Amino acid sequence: MQNGMHDVFIHPLALVESDRIGRGTRIWAFAHVMAGAIIGEECNIGDHAFIETGAVIGRGVTIKNGVMVWKGVTIEDYAFIGPNAIFTNDRQPRSTRMPEIQALGRTESDWLVPTRVEIGASIGANATIVAGVKIGRYALVAAGSVVTKDVRPFTIVAGNPAKPRGYVNREGVVLKETEDGSWWDPHTGRRYRITQDHVEEM
Amino acid sequence: MQNGMHDVFIHPLALVESDRIGRGTRIWAFAHVMAGAIIGEECNIGDHAFIETGAVIGRGVTIKNGVMVWKGVTIEDYAFIGPNAIFTNDRQPRSTRMPEIQALGRTESDWLVPTRVEIGASIGANATIVAGVKIGRYALVAAGSVVTKDVRPFTIVAGNPAKPRGYVNREGVVLKETEDGSWWDPHTGRRYRITQDHVEEM
Amino acid sequence: MQNGMHDVFIHPLALVESDRIGRGTRIWAFAHVMAGAIIGEECNIGDHAFIETGAVIGRGVTIKNGVMVWKGVTIEDYAFIGPNAIFTNDRQPRSTRMPEIQALGRTESDWLVPTRVEIGASIGANATIVAGVKIGRYALVAAGSVVTKDVRPFTIVAGNPAKPRGYVNREGVVLKETEDGSWWDPHTGRRYRITQDHVEEM
Repeated sequence: MQNGMHDVFIHPLALVESDRIGRGTRIWAFAHVMAGAIIGEECNIGDHAFIETGAVIGRGVTIKNGVMVWKGVTIEDYAFIGPNAIFTNDRQPRSTRMPEIQALGRTESDWLVPTRVEIGASIGANATIVAGVKIGRYALVAAGSVVTKDVRPFTIVAGNPAKPRGYVNREGVVLKETEDGSWWDPHTGRRYRITQDHVEEM
Repeated sequence: MQNGMHDVFIHPLALVESDRIGRGTRIWAFAHVMAGAIIGEECNIGDHAFIETGAVIGRGVTIKNGVMVWKGVTIEDYAFIGPNAIFTNDRQPRSTRMPEIQALGRTESDWLVPTRVEIGASIGANATIVAGVKIGRYALVAAGSVVTKDVRPFTIVAGNPAKPRGYVNREGVVLKETEDGSWWDPHTGRRYRITQDHVEEM
Repeated sequence: MQNGMHDVFIHPLALVESDRIGRGTRIWAFAHVMAGAIIGEECNIGDHAFIETGAVIGRGVTIKNGVMVWKGVTIEDYAFIGPNAIFTNDRQPRSTRMPEIQALGRTESDWLVPTRVEIGASIGANATIVAGVKIGRYALVAAGSVVTKDVRPFTIVAGNPAKPRGYVNREGVVLKETEDGSWWDPHTGRRYRITQDHVEEM
């Protein structure tokens, strides 16, 4: 127990200023969790990670080393965020200290653009997630991708910019196409219907 | 006040060895500023950033978390360097401990290649800036880009390798083309003349 | 001397839990070397680096700032790993806390995929190395590349995904093609025979 929270492991070299961290969560060396950041139960927050005030992280999430989660970013339960994967929350970044920017008198609502990672999705190492996108449930962003558009559920994307490359099941295994045009999970036998806008379990 | 400098905020978990930091600048947790690094007034240096001896940073610059600024890199006033954006200063990197490299007896002038970010430019999150390029004033490097060539002023670049995609004004808003072939800033009414080599305000 | 090891420099703000570090190696601020990680002699481990239990690093290796080396990754002598270059060790990353993943009862041998960087190779800044590849001896991975396949010895790769772009000598200088179809190192006069599968010194 530290910070008045029960059953939260905080490494002695981590800096944790939030008291809204769920039971069973572990936070490792040189990580910084700012005041007001919300982290669910049974998460793992790796070394050198940074969780900003206003970030929201669900239950059972794996945040690998060096990941930065900003205000405006919501990560749902059981997501995996690979090492050095980077989020953003502003699509027209400028130094707020620039006179032309100060003259605009912008408030946070003028520039903050929310991002959401849905349940069970995985974001590969060193991927870049541009502000404003939604990563659908159980989707898989390949390592090193630059995501500029929404990613549909169960979909693999890769590249810069990231484009769809296939489909995965909940366990991250690539789906196979069947003769009738549906898709099949070789592990569980589940079948999926994939249309232009949706991927759904049948 | 720390390190004998007035009005510089240094987080207790930062490591600041330079005494050449301007008034009003703030340096956050787990950041390391080496001796001799020069940082102007009113800058913000995020968590886990690294500023090497020989780096030069102007006034009002935003250095987001995890950014590394090496010797040979100059960042002019009011620039924005997004989280985990990475500079380099060597185009043929080898371990200096390799016998073949030690046999060359290279000195710093043999390998150090300077890089410059001009006034007001923005570099997006997780971008890679190859040594030797100049990022022109108020240019915008999109998140995740790999910049291998100079970027002209007011120009947006994106991709790997990064290529021109459009133009922005000082506030980071995309310019629109007019009927006479010049470009127009919808916020301020300023017009721009864009030729193969130059972008200039008219 | 620290941790009972002679002639190892450990910065006071580093966290070093391994006692298997070779003579003359230096480890800098905010770096974390876990118990059981093996690091050879005369290495340099930059700020904010992370070396996991099970990682193996040879002699004279340069590990720049922010690099993460996981279990399953082997880095041979005299390699150069640029700043924020990222390795991975799992090709189907999911949160181990997801119920569907826990139901699989996977053990490490089910998901751990080894990666090897051979002698003298260089990996550029912010490159992403997908688990399971081999980076051949003296190869050069350009900054910002995403490596998804093996890289042959003495070969330059760049892009996302990374593709072959040319050849380098041991010192990192680009080779030139000769009239008889072999390749020539302008520094040393060494010639190379390059076939579809091999690059070898003649």
